[in-house]
Amino acid sequence: MAKFKLDEIDHQILDMLIDNTRIPFTDIAKKLLISAGTVHVRVKKMEEAGIIRGSSLTLDYVKLGYSFIAYVGIFLEKTSQTKFVLERINEIPYVTVAHITTGKFNIFCKVRAQDTKHAKDIIFMIDDIEGVSRTETMISLEESINDKKRLMHKIFQEL
Amino acid sequence: MAKFKLDEIDHQILDMLIDNTRIPFTDIAKKLLISAGTVHVRVKKMEEAGIIRGSSLTLDYVKLGYSFIAYVGIFLEKTSQTKFVLERINEIPYVTVAHITTGKFNIFCKVRAQDTKHAKDIIFMIDDIEGVSRTETMISLEESINDKKRLMHKIFQEL
Amino acid sequence: MAKFKLDEIDHQILDMLIDNTRIPFTDIAKKLLISAGTVHVRVKKMEEAGIIRGSSLTLDYVKLGYSFIAYVGIFLEKTSQTKFVLERINEIPYVTVAHITTGKFNIFCKVRAQDTKHAKDIIFMIDDIEGVSRTETMISLEESINDKKRLMHKIFQEL
Amino acid sequence: MAKFKLDEIDHQILDMLIDNTRIPFTDIAKKLLISAGTVHVRVKKMEEAGIIRGSSLTLDYVKLGYSFIAYVGIFLEKTSQTKFVLERINEIPYVTVAHITTGKFNIFCKVRAQDTKHAKDIIFMIDDIEGVSRTETMISLEESINDKKRLMHKIFQEL
Amino acid sequence: MAKFKLDEIDHQILDMLIDNTRIPFTDIAKKLLISAGTVHVRVKKMEEAGIIRGSSLTLDYVKLGYSFIAYVGIFLEKTSQTKFVLERINEIPYVTVAHITTGKFNIFCKVRAQDTKHAKDIIFMIDDIEGVSRTETMISLEESINDKKRLMHKIFQEL
Amino acid sequence: MAKFKLDEIDHQILDMLIDNTRIPFTDIAKKLLISAGTVHVRVKKMEEAGIIRGSSLTLDYVKLGYSFIAYVGIFLEKTSQTKFVLERINEIPYVTVAHITTGKFNIFCKVRAQDTKHAKDIIFMIDDIEGVSRTETMISLEESINDKKRLMHKIFQEL
Amino acid sequence: MAKFKLDEIDHQILDMLIDNTRIPFTDIAKKLLISAGTVHVRVKKMEEAGIIRGSSLTLDYVKLGYSFIAYVGIFLEKTSQTKFVLERINEIPYVTVAHITTGKFNIFCKVRAQDTKHAKDIIFMIDDIEGVSRTETMISLEESINDKKRLMHKIFQEL
Amino acid sequence: MAKFKLDEIDHQILDMLIDNTRIPFTDIAKKLLISAGTVHVRVKKMEEAGIIRGSSLTLDYVKLGYSFIAYVGIFLEKTSQTKFVLERINEIPYVTVAHITTGKFNIFCKVRAQDTKHAKDIIFMIDDIEGVSRTETMISLEESINDKKRLMHKIFQEL
Repeated sequence: MAKFKLDEIDHQILDMLIDNTRIPFTDIAKKLLISAGTVHVRVKKMEEAGIIRGSSLTLDYVKLGYSFIAYVGIFLEKTSQTKFVLERINEIPYVTVAHITTGKFNIFCKVRAQDTKHAKDIIFMIDDIEGVSRTETMISLEESINDKKRLMHKIFQEL
Repeated sequence: MAKFKLDEIDHQILDMLIDNTRIPFTDIAKKLLISAGTVHVRVKKMEEAGIIRGSSLTLDYVKLGYSFIAYVGIFLEKTSQTKFVLERINEIPYVTVAHITTGKFNIFCKVRAQDTKHAKDIIFMIDDIEGVSRTETMISLEESINDKKRLMHKIFQEL
Repeated sequence: MAKFKLDEIDHQILDMLIDNTRIPFTDIAKKLLISAGTVHVRVKKMEEAGIIRGSSLTLDYVKLGYSFIAYVGIFLEKTSQTKFVLERINEIPYVTVAHITTGKFNIFCKVRAQDTKHAKDIIFMIDDIEGVSRTETMISLEESINDKKRLMHKIFQEL
Repeated sequence: MAKFKLDEIDHQILDMLIDNTRIPFTDIAKKLLISAGTVHVRVKKMEEAGIIRGSSLTLDYVKLGYSFIAYVGIFLEKTSQTKFVLERINEIPYVTVAHITTGKFNIFCKVRAQDTKHAKDIIFMIDDIEGVSRTETMISLEESINDKKRLMHKIFQEL
Repeated sequence: MAKFKLDEIDHQILDMLIDNTRIPFTDIAKKLLISAGTVHVRVKKMEEAGIIRGSSLTLDYVKLGYSFIAYVGIFLEKTSQTKFVLERINEIPYVTVAHITTGKFNIFCKVRAQDTKHAKDIIFMIDDIEGVSRTETMISLEESINDKKRLMHKIFQEL
Repeated sequence: MAKFKLDEIDHQILDMLIDNTRIPFTDIAKKLLISAGTVHVRVKKMEEAGIIRGSSLTLDYVKLGYSFIAYVGIFLEKTSQTKFVLERINEIPYVTVAHITTGKFNIFCKVRAQDTKHAKDIIFMIDDIEGVSRTETMISLEESINDKKRLMHKIFQEL
Repeated sequence: MAKFKLDEIDHQILDMLIDNTRIPFTDIAKKLLISAGTVHVRVKKMEEAGIIRGSSLTLDYVKLGYSFIAYVGIFLEKTSQTKFVLERINEIPYVTVAHITTGKFNIFCKVRAQDTKHAKDIIFMIDDIEGVSRTETMISLEESINDKKRLMHKIFQEL
Repeated sequence: MAKFKLDEIDHQILDMLIDNTRIPFTDIAKKLLISAGTVHVRVKKMEEAGIIRGSSLTLDYVKLGYSFIAYVGIFLEKTSQTKFVLERINEIPYVTVAHITTGKFNIFCKVRAQDTKHAKDIIFMIDDIEGVSRTETMISLEESINDKKRLMHKIFQEL
């Protein structure tokens, strides 16, 4: 788990990309008083090192008709089925996050659905996976924070 | 909660941006046999409509020294403190997600930390917020799925 | 808790009213080969005895925009506040049923809301009542049965 | 989930029927200064639109010897059995309400019984349904509120 | 559930027997200014009516080497096994009380044992009964009250 | 916790008294081929040693109108209040047994009541004791075993 | 459970060994003004009596790369499997303590691991033992006290 | 958290000390074909590096009258009191282990007591510490494994 060495310039490049992944490299270059080629090389290096794994669009799910968020805790019949069940869960696009966890659940996942009825259908899909013994669901009444940028900036300040 | 009307061209633009937010508009234009200007106008329109709210970098937290994920359930003394407590939580950059939930917790949040000791410090920060009565923590042993792209593609297929 | 004596004719009258509270007494009379006056007298007697306490309309809540049902368990600070809290709950029209219960909750109630956001507002109203210490909510994914008629017919068969 | 359009007159008709389903249409007509035929037509229209689904008698269960109310949470062996189990539950007239729920139970239902012994027999009937793994019961010590009229009036005020 | 009619004299006889089941009938007779024969007849009648079901010795279990008390909650595989399991439990003399209960347990029982090791053996006996799925045990740290006399006197005061 | 030495004769005397506390000493003497005086002396000795602490009547509570049994788990605000709360509980005659326990409750007690309403009143009495924070109640659906005689005989066989 | 008789000299010898098991017997002898042979004889006697069962090294697990501590509660399918499961657990060196317990778990054990991933692997090893139905894990955020010396000294002061 | 470098000879020395902390250095030296001085130097180095933190006696607690083991979970009023409460707990010699934990408890500790009554007194001591809100206790019915030697040998095999 050795940490990749990033220097001050890398941090500043990342800080700008975190705020806007579509910012042109020439803009980054101008602000840092380096060449656009240097930006390109360094971003490429960070991608190759696996530090930057990609970028993702932030959509407004409510506007797209997906206003229902649920957390589903899964009890398995046997933990030896964990890998198999996770593969089945991965086929359900409405599950955006899944963890193997301590505590009472074996797997814990986040589900986005259109409404109560849709949520029921998705929960039933999960329940019907072979090896799943039972599920417990917690409904989100409001997604108050969903923001990785504060963390990313913090990480680069700390490094 | 009226749904914004997106046409087939919009879906195809979004589908491409979902896979790579940094794809040049000229590339999108070429593939869809439209002008880059049209792509630009449509993306702008979707941004103004609030459908596209931005883009975010996907970093490898493990490589950056953040390999510890915990879910923290918060019990408040009074739900009238919910807004105040969420504002305090928002000041802790290690909390990347927070929900108001049904079930036993008032607020449920996701925390990324460097290790066990760091997690303890963050949990104590949350516990020390005025109005927080108690917390319960569930540790992730493995983040098996963290992928919104499957969902985004699904949404545009369905629309 | 002495049971009021109902005879066979009373049961048959009730059986018909259970299926349709608006059935004219003349129709009941015709079917039972008695006079409409007799029906009137007997229904009046059952109302005075408190057996029939009224009648209620069965509306389609989903069609009226109320598709969200939640059960809310309430923990009080002191059970001596039970009466006071129930009076406050009674002022919230979205709470259609409330019980004093054994088990972990002091009061258990049923809430009908328009959607998730509305449900959150109602739960917060309950949480903010003086004397309420905490609540736990269970969401209904589907109201599969809501039918007292089967029970009413059964009671009159048994009597 | 399009809402049926009701006008002010419809609301006033419903408001009167909510308080007394047996009120003669001529009485409603007189109060609203419209003809009884108009009342009849509008009620019929609301019935056909499915807004009014019927009416039900409000009996005094205690006077009829049914003073025991329990809420029974059901754990299924597999959620794929939900539909089958609900059909079996529907054959037990003592179960007046049943929901598919989130949280720890798969199905949650309300039971009216004569006394403790009768409740035990009903719970055992539910427990014996194929596919039911376990049940947990919560006893009502007092049904403090059971009133949909406040909600109905509220809905028509809001519309 | 008709209540047997007891008069004032019966109450006074019972009140004396409650305090000392071995009190000679002649002593009771003297205090109540009635004949010993009358006492005999009335006690006999109460025994025949099933009101007095017997008497039991109050031993000091600690002095007899039984200082460990545990409450054991039993989960059954199916409630249809309740009768069978209770018969097996009845063969274990260390179980002095057993109830069919609401809440999370199917059967709840009280166990008296010599010490921790003995308690473990008894719990294992219960666990090994066919149809028992799991048990949960709560240990008594002190039996602070075990006294039915206060209740018995209260009942006769109230009647 | 030294065990009092009981010989074979003592065991046989106790065995007879366990089955019927009112058996005349002359009957015991005849069966054991010893004098009634010897029986008297030995019983007296066992009473003085505290082994026999008394005897109690076994009444049929259902016939006396007390058919409702509940177990109530009590959470205290501070365990330093245990002694005080137990003294208040001791003033409620409907509580026949109370234990200081491990597990989630501080005090666990058994309540006999007439019916659901009466049980509610008793639970509220307990809830209202100063120092009691909260209670949880489990209802008995059937008292299947309540018999110390099997244990008593077992103890004397083992000694 | 008869207690072995230890005299004042034995206590003082034990008190010194508790602080440093490697202290030479000649040092102990000098301090107590007895001969080294006497120390030797008495230690031997305490070993033969089973009071001293050995000695163990106190290593710094964090320095050795084992900084992760978890408590794992095990639910068995049947308690008759307890012995078998404990034997399998005994083959996993990372489990340093295991108890048969009351409460919700059948077996409760302490696990030392290198990190989160290692802990997951160990928990899966336990989960995969035949007869284990499910496990629940609690993570230690800090081992604040791990010290038997205070207890040992206390025991010898009390004796 | 850099790992101290130990070579093969160090491992073999530790392996022997783990089995018997009182083994003379001359015996270790003979087996490893090195000088006793070398053993001495290396052990000293490992002590100075903090890898060996001491040694402790393994006593038979049952023979010393301490046969009762309990795990006590502590809920604090505020986690800011953690340090203060741990200091108070440290003054109770019967608590041999204490952890700050995730999950429902703030602090989780292991208690050794003489018997049920003694355990109650210790639990009450913990409950009475300022800042402790509530405790839950789990009783050990048998300490089946308590052995760090398997782990220590494993660690040195792996290094």
